[in-house]
Amino acid sequence: MHVIIAYDIGIERLHKVYLVMKQYLNWIQNSAFEGDLSMGQLEELKVKVMGIIDKERDSIVVFLVSNPEWIDRRVWGRERGDVKSII
Amino acid sequence: MHVIIAYDIGIERLHKVYLVMKQYLNWIQNSAFEGDLSMGQLEELKVKVMGIIDKERDSIVVFLVSNPEWIDRRVWGRERGDVKSII
Repeated sequence: MHVIIAYDIGIERLHKVYLVMKQYLNWIQNSAFEGDLSMGQLEELKVKVMGIIDKERDSIVVFLVSNPEWIDRRVWGRERGDVKSII
Repeated sequence: MHVIIAYDIGIERLHKVYLVMKQYLNWIQNSAFEGDLSMGQLEELKVKVMGIIDKERDSIVVFLVSNPEWIDRRVWGRERGDVKSII
């Protein structure tokens, strides 16, 4: 399962969320991660993240695409992170 | 074509990029937009955005998925933006 995550998190919780996400996914931008996870790993990640965020304020949008070949990924400007090998 | 865009832009160019993106896509997060565009519209958006950003510093990652039904979209925490109707 290919996963793209974008998040808006209060600055006081940002680093904790970053550290958890980094265990599972590749950092691609400030506030965006990407990678391949099983549904089990995604559930694990969700439990950890939900234990950190303020559910009334923080927002995380998760996009799941079961086949990475269905995604055409482009970069405008500079490539960041280390994701060249992902897709 | 369903489009998800995540961007890291220098603060001095951020509002200009935001205004251009908003003409084409739905704002979902600080630094993330989503919506349906034709390839022509995407090219138009690219030209406008490339005219604003610093290509050595700013980074925009564009994910294209031709069928929106291939995307399973989930929100952890709070839904932001106005995208409930998108998928």
